[in-house]
Amino acid sequence: MRRRIESVMVARLATVGRNGRPHIVPITFAPADGAVYFAVDHKPKRTSDLQRLRNIEANPWVSVLFDNYEDDWSKLWWVRVEGRAHIAGEGADFENGIALLVKRYSQYRSTPPAGPLVAITIERMTGWSGS
Amino acid sequence: MRRRIESVMVARLATVGRNGRPHIVPITFAPADGAVYFAVDHKPKRTSDLQRLRNIEANPWVSVLFDNYEDDWSKLWWVRVEGRAHIAGEGADFENGIALLVKRYSQYRSTPPAGPLVAITIERMTGWSGS
Repeated sequence: MRRRIESVMVARLATVGRNGRPHIVPITFAPADGAVYFAVDHKPKRTSDLQRLRNIEANPWVSVLFDNYEDDWSKLWWVRVEGRAHIAGEGADFENGIALLVKRYSQYRSTPPAGPLVAITIERMTGWSGS
Repeated sequence: MRRRIESVMVARLATVGRNGRPHIVPITFAPADGAVYFAVDHKPKRTSDLQRLRNIEANPWVSVLFDNYEDDWSKLWWVRVEGRAHIAGEGADFENGIALLVKRYSQYRSTPPAGPLVAITIERMTGWSGS
């Protein structure tokens, strides 16, 4: 499952709002030992300006999906991570996560993501494959 | 946004469990006027056997993401649908939704999805594009 996660460049993040409704966004990400990092590209004025961050502040449980779609359905697979997220605007987690993202995405080399960084501690990982 | 939704063959569905945690799965889907349909390929013995259906029974609010990822980030886009889902095991909604899915996916022609069908009534649609 780790190899599959490494093989894709985009994942989808689900969070839950205070109103109990789900919210979903695509994310670029960097996997690490027992964790997944993602970052906000352009620092918002306030954390509460971005729904995904507002949701995580209220409820840290997130679900992240890594998957592959092809017309040949025997090649479908997905890996799902469930975990708890925390937001880091600076410090060791922030520096480490941003460095991993810049290493993984050449697009970030000229302009690293401003953050905040979100670190997801993996609590559960499940997967499925069509073959 | 409707054209973009039509252009992709996989979407990601987020639901919320009774425990307040998000759940995310990839789905094949068929858009319709003001609605999005998806179906379960293999009928479970009980609705409660599948987390996505169990969640929808408890909380009908869902979020569905349609997106495009490319190395050229100026070509990124996403469309997000928020809406309320209901489960149809038979009847007009079921027949209509399954027919749309079979029409959209050649893979379903030999074996249509058994269902149940889930019909999502679109309450809100938002989008973003990198260009």
